[in-house]
Amino acid sequence: MRDMVKVGLMGLGTVGGGVVELLAKNRVEIAQRAGEGIEIAMALVRDPAKARGLDGAIPRLTTDPEEILADKSIGIVVETMGGEEPALTYIKKALRRGKHVVTANKEVVSAHGQELFEAAMIHRCHLMFEGSVGGGIPIIMPLKRCLAANDIDEVSAVINGTTNYILTEMTAKGKDFAEVLREAQARGYAEADPSADVDGLDAARKLAILASIAFNTRVTPSHVSTEGIRAVSSADPRYAAELGCVIKLVATARQDDGAVRVAVAPVLLPKDHPLAAVNGPDNAVLVRGRPVGRVVFSGPGAGRGATASAVVGDIMEIVRQRTRPDKSQCTCFTTKEVLAGSGRPSPFYVRLRLPDGHGALDRATAAFAARGVSLASASRKSADGSGYEFVLVTRSAAEDAVRAAAAEGASNGAGWAVLNVLRMEDGDGAA
Amino acid sequence: MRDMVKVGLMGLGTVGGGVVELLAKNRVEIAQRAGEGIEIAMALVRDPAKARGLDGAIPRLTTDPEEILADKSIGIVVETMGGEEPALTYIKKALRRGKHVVTANKEVVSAHGQELFEAAMIHRCHLMFEGSVGGGIPIIMPLKRCLAANDIDEVSAVINGTTNYILTEMTAKGKDFAEVLREAQARGYAEADPSADVDGLDAARKLAILASIAFNTRVTPSHVSTEGIRAVSSADPRYAAELGCVIKLVATARQDDGAVRVAVAPVLLPKDHPLAAVNGPDNAVLVRGRPVGRVVFSGPGAGRGATASAVVGDIMEIVRQRTRPDKSQCTCFTTKEVLAGSGRPSPFYVRLRLPDGHGALDRATAAFAARGVSLASASRKSADGSGYEFVLVTRSAAEDAVRAAAAEGASNGAGWAVLNVLRMEDGDGAA
Repeated sequence: MRDMVKVGLMGLGTVGGGVVELLAKNRVEIAQRAGEGIEIAMALVRDPAKARGLDGAIPRLTTDPEEILADKSIGIVVETMGGEEPALTYIKKALRRGKHVVTANKEVVSAHGQELFEAAMIHRCHLMFEGSVGGGIPIIMPLKRCLAANDIDEVSAVINGTTNYILTEMTAKGKDFAEVLREAQARGYAEADPSADVDGLDAARKLAILASIAFNTRVTPSHVSTEGIRAVSSADPRYAAELGCVIKLVATARQDDGAVRVAVAPVLLPKDHPLAAVNGPDNAVLVRGRPVGRVVFSGPGAGRGATASAVVGDIMEIVRQRTRPDKSQCTCFTTKEVLAGSGRPSPFYVRLRLPDGHGALDRATAAFAARGVSLASASRKSADGSGYEFVLVTRSAAEDAVRAAAAEGASNGAGWAVLNVLRMEDGDGAA
Repeated sequence: MRDMVKVGLMGLGTVGGGVVELLAKNRVEIAQRAGEGIEIAMALVRDPAKARGLDGAIPRLTTDPEEILADKSIGIVVETMGGEEPALTYIKKALRRGKHVVTANKEVVSAHGQELFEAAMIHRCHLMFEGSVGGGIPIIMPLKRCLAANDIDEVSAVINGTTNYILTEMTAKGKDFAEVLREAQARGYAEADPSADVDGLDAARKLAILASIAFNTRVTPSHVSTEGIRAVSSADPRYAAELGCVIKLVATARQDDGAVRVAVAPVLLPKDHPLAAVNGPDNAVLVRGRPVGRVVFSGPGAGRGATASAVVGDIMEIVRQRTRPDKSQCTCFTTKEVLAGSGRPSPFYVRLRLPDGHGALDRATAAFAARGVSLASASRKSADGSGYEFVLVTRSAAEDAVRAAAAEGASNGAGWAVLNVLRMEDGDGAA
């Protein structure tokens, strides 16, 4: 065999360990398909003495990133540490030393893509990040390259496995958010501090990456209106099911009148929507473009093996290309207005608690009518001591008007409360 | 703008016309994303006088392929004629003249991939064929590159839009195959001669292309056991629904004990199977690999715009690469045994017509028991003058044994008939 391509691995946790295992397990096929063999020459770890079950797979463990960065035999740095720092600093240093970089770090790529791509261009390095979105699902390369001839109208995705697992469990078992979250934490599907997942930030980061590619303009997580799933109660999936819908945390980017709109929020999807059947920790990304139409990519959104598949695929792509890029790989050619929120009328699901007594529903519906929001249905649900839950479904309306009307109705008297307001999507996949 | 990359287009029918339109419509974005502008310099047509609504988009129409092949300013030849000849000859000539080739021609690629790749390697040309499988769905590049680190166990696909449209209509409306076929022909979803679609050959060609990439060995359409949908009656989708299933024409390639198994056949899929929800002319491809797990790609499987998206994506990829490939792009590194048929036990759906009278079902089940096939259920369906339809569901069994038992039962007496034998798949996506 010819010389091996030498890789420096930064981080030997779940994903890094998966990369080492995969390169060992499919070594022969990977070398055939990439055209050259690939070996991990060195790995950056916090504690070299820690047992990882990867004995002998890596010639050298180090605690000093400079050892990898200064090693001229290492052509590719793979960053699998996660988190913003020190990963960002190490990636920039690697690019400045002329090393190609593969990362699965959505925090770094979504917030710092611009400076990373500038460094990559100056030093003529590849910067690859397939594993940063959708785990093992090929989505970055298909969007950036296979679908590059299209005018993209929309990218919508169920793209956070933790929240999708929680919502799937809440729906299947009628359990509360807090209970399922505890179970998810116990099973390793949710972090000890789950806020980046359950509050929608993780999905916003991934959406920013996808939107930047799809619409050729810089979108960062701070652009995205982000609503998590903490306000979804055990009643909401049940009421959604009565409407023929399921609740999913949907990340959506659309191009509308030259502006890009980006939002992450729990949404009611009809059961035949292509994102509705994505269950448990799976992810799916829907792309709508002209002329292609609607394309959907689905699969495991996270996990050791799935993310390793994406990372090693990127390493192989760099090896296969053999030449250094002579221009920017950044796809943000233009500067478009980027706006938070969907900005698009649609039906809404409004769950209210109204006091017992005549006229309560009338006063609530009047508040909607006063804002120009007409209702498609209003159903009384369970009663408690002092009132009833109602689920109102609006006709297509602006989100602001719906929220204002709901809040106004709630301010009308004692015992009123707005329990949830969720967007509803139609069935053609226009999430 | 710099010099444009000049393309010679061979064939200006549905797909070729779509390519011209797309290059015109998204001209600016395509140039930005590819790094250079792309123009059709010349197109090969049968009749230059024919009106195509593409006025002025192409500087020169010709009826002589040599004009394109001899033009040194043309670096990329795009073949959108379809059919085996003369497309194959023209593609080979283009490669021998050092021109990169993009084709959506599944007939040529599936049957002649080896010689084409050899020519491409000798002359250091790119040979791209994303549009040959799955229309606008990115699948060739994701399988060849994004998922290249994986050991692929299975590729299963609903990959022929005509049969999927027919089966969807038969299921939704309870109509007969012949009636839906006539409607599909009237609506342009089926050809005047529908045999390549309805007899499974088109799916077998696409499967051969996918299997060759997935398993790194040469698979051609002649390897594939191919059963079409003509034997599916209007009763089958109804009985399938009673079993919680839908009938799809599924193309499956699996690796099993080092051999590759390839089959195209109508199959009963449980309703929650990832390929079960692919309706109408849509296509979907399921890939199962280690370590990635199960990934599914779905979208429009054919059509002017969808296929043009894939073809122009390939052109852009060639432009983006800028360098000539210095080794083979062929992924058939190995030679594995390739066997027709699934070769895998599974439950089967057997529709029989049994004569009226005591003991008919007993004799039928005895025939299965004698072959070691045990039954999970046997249901009497509609009666006609002289007998009853029965649907038997076997436990997991070898296909040969099931077919032999069914035939033996049918030979047992007058009024017996085997109406259909269809494989049933389980719900985890292991189609």
